[in-house]
Amino acid sequence: MINYHAGWALPITSPPIRHATVSVDGACIAYVGPRLGAPPGEDRDLGDAILLPGLVNAHTHLELTAMRGLLPGMPFVSWIRRLTQARSAVLTDASMRDAAAWGIAEGLTAGITTYGDTCASGVVVEALRSMGVRGIMFQEVFGPAPEQREPALASLRSRIDALRPLETDLVHLGVSPHAPYTVHEDLLVDAAAYAVGAGLPVAIHLAESDAEMAFLREGEGPFADGLRARGISVVRRAHSPVHLLVELGVVLARPLLIHCVHVDETDIAFIAEHGCPVAHCPASNAILGHGIAPVRELLDAGAVVGLGSDSMASNDRMDLLGEARFATWCQAARLHRPGALSDTEALTLATLGGARALGLERRVGSLEPGKDADLAAFGIPAAQATALADPWTAALAAAGTPAMLVTVAGRERVRDGQVVDLDAGLAARVGASAEALAAWRRSLASH
Amino acid sequence: MINYHAGWALPITSPPIRHATVSVDGACIAYVGPRLGAPPGEDRDLGDAILLPGLVNAHTHLELTAMRGLLPGMPFVSWIRRLTQARSAVLTDASMRDAAAWGIAEGLTAGITTYGDTCASGVVVEALRSMGVRGIMFQEVFGPAPEQREPALASLRSRIDALRPLETDLVHLGVSPHAPYTVHEDLLVDAAAYAVGAGLPVAIHLAESDAEMAFLREGEGPFADGLRARGISVVRRAHSPVHLLVELGVVLARPLLIHCVHVDETDIAFIAEHGCPVAHCPASNAILGHGIAPVRELLDAGAVVGLGSDSMASNDRMDLLGEARFATWCQAARLHRPGALSDTEALTLATLGGARALGLERRVGSLEPGKDADLAAFGIPAAQATALADPWTAALAAAGTPAMLVTVAGRERVRDGQVVDLDAGLAARVGASAEALAAWRRSLASH
Repeated sequence: MINYHAGWALPITSPPIRHATVSVDGACIAYVGPRLGAPPGEDRDLGDAILLPGLVNAHTHLELTAMRGLLPGMPFVSWIRRLTQARSAVLTDASMRDAAAWGIAEGLTAGITTYGDTCASGVVVEALRSMGVRGIMFQEVFGPAPEQREPALASLRSRIDALRPLETDLVHLGVSPHAPYTVHEDLLVDAAAYAVGAGLPVAIHLAESDAEMAFLREGEGPFADGLRARGISVVRRAHSPVHLLVELGVVLARPLLIHCVHVDETDIAFIAEHGCPVAHCPASNAILGHGIAPVRELLDAGAVVGLGSDSMASNDRMDLLGEARFATWCQAARLHRPGALSDTEALTLATLGGARALGLERRVGSLEPGKDADLAAFGIPAAQATALADPWTAALAAAGTPAMLVTVAGRERVRDGQVVDLDAGLAARVGASAEALAAWRRSLASH
Repeated sequence: MINYHAGWALPITSPPIRHATVSVDGACIAYVGPRLGAPPGEDRDLGDAILLPGLVNAHTHLELTAMRGLLPGMPFVSWIRRLTQARSAVLTDASMRDAAAWGIAEGLTAGITTYGDTCASGVVVEALRSMGVRGIMFQEVFGPAPEQREPALASLRSRIDALRPLETDLVHLGVSPHAPYTVHEDLLVDAAAYAVGAGLPVAIHLAESDAEMAFLREGEGPFADGLRARGISVVRRAHSPVHLLVELGVVLARPLLIHCVHVDETDIAFIAEHGCPVAHCPASNAILGHGIAPVRELLDAGAVVGLGSDSMASNDRMDLLGEARFATWCQAARLHRPGALSDTEALTLATLGGARALGLERRVGSLEPGKDADLAAFGIPAAQATALADPWTAALAAAGTPAMLVTVAGRERVRDGQVVDLDAGLAARVGASAEALAAWRRSLASH
């Protein structure tokens, strides 16, 4: 038994505890409550720190971590194309595996213990395993042309078959038909049906951009133009991406809906009625110029919402407390209502919300006896320690501060802001990838 | 001579320099350029750090620093009233002086060397002096009732007369008629005229809230109701706060316009035409539910814009790199345009923009030989060092990281993330104020 003592514990599913102890027995939480005087086992005093359940990143693309800062300020459709070109021109499975491990190292120091990852290459399963974290890797599938339906599905099946032996108690697989504008609707239905049959969760990028809305609603815009240029016919298809999933029956797979920036009242009602969870990525949505998702309305309708960092190609940090803090600011600004999304709610999205969005709420997302011991502790910067009335606010204000301690299923993964047993050569290898990507980009600019 | 060597220097007024040296001779910058091999004087190697001009916080209320987290999620008008009550019920000049010094300590660790402060109590001049930083304290004046005109002006004059002997080469005075809804327009004109005559700069909170707009445009809303309840007559007055300043001739004083969230095309044209600088406070504007200011349009019109943290009563950190980063995200989200405000522009607002907004651009805001040696250096977190293609982006992503080094007029004020010679008892005294404020708030809730 290890007893972690801290100034505050925020169990999420029960009120904050001042002067708290969280006891861990093997991989599980055994006790959460007021500070124990002389408990059996080992004691670790975290001082004035705030102890949280490990944060859950409901959406990222770890394989793209070396692309940070590579393609700033580009229109979304051009950005996706450049990103795809860069990946095939410069990156290899080995470099993407390193990038994923490096992204997890950054996430761990930010207190993130669980990763919902959508992955084209399939390398993230290995990275999650090697870094000792929890996660679901949703294997991506692409194919906008009707004739891609069968080969893409066959390739998905064989990829999943090859990866299944790598699953562990902490690391699982899922399926991600990428998005309505990159996956033909027949393939979308087939992939979802395959996943349901195989007992795998589904995730899809949805209602993210103005271009996606124009594509589905009008059969127009840059995505439609791009497909037509490849000889693929495009028709005006649905009122919205959410309506499309309802019409196709894909909502029955209860897919994780990534983004949902462009959702109206009918979309929100469908999302709630069908119990589809949402991954909200506020920084990425802002940076890529998509806007601010109606998170307040989604929560009011009863939808399950988690927070995601998205990839480091559209964000500058993997920092889920930062996403939570930014989410509160965005909702207040959008609705002209202070506290429209409270700090308590935002931190709940970053923990239990993400766990529910990934179907892992029986294992993680809160500090409760019997749950897995995924913990994250943050020291409070001196200035804030003396002048923050509320531990929820204090936790969000710790955004960007390296975690003092992170455990996954009871195993220490971060100590004093440093990842335990980090591969010493990783930074240099990812740095070389980043340099190669930057050189590729410069070579484009010079032509 | 001290020669600071760093991986990058961002002079702001010239392109980034890889492997740079900035040499300081006494209080001034003597050299900015490629790394010098064996320069005369002392060498300080900052390693891979990014060296910036000291950041300029164009708007804050340092005396309120102990109010962090005190009044979350309240409607703006109730929030202002509670804040004012809390100040008179709990705080003293001594406690506000401590709070101001503590706020400056936090700002220094975030690289902020210059402070544009609006202050009711007048204590901030002493705090700026004692902490060895640069700044302008705008003495606030209030008085919504016509009969307050003469006593309020007399009190302003005597306060300024008393503070003038405390001015130094680094610390100066200004005048701030608080806002159109707290200052009768006759007093507004008199205070501005007095300031111009006395050679003092002027600042005013303007176009911040929906309530302020309703007050001026319709003579309605909670501010109007509050004044009428005090027997003060309110009439529908102007198309907008900016139009009011134009009509009254107050724009001729070229006041610093704090906020400018609610400005239309005509307002922006007036602001640019009259050369009134703007203090943009993106986090505070979001948190208080005011919205997102049209910074892109203000810059396109040629307005001078600086960034402000506002007080810690409406923000959780004094972190100007964070404000710059947030400003870029907000403009992209608002305009649905990635890069609508680039990282380069945002960092320019946080340095040279703020310096121009405070009229200090001949002394600070960029790294140039002859300017005062106000420097701030940030280490790049390991994850980002290997994967950030652009030093501007890297600088913004350092938000929340304590500065490695900060100098003001050549004098080291931060070393390795710690403020040099910080009063050891300060934290406890500010902590006690924060506790007293929290107790006062709990006592309200229990009645």
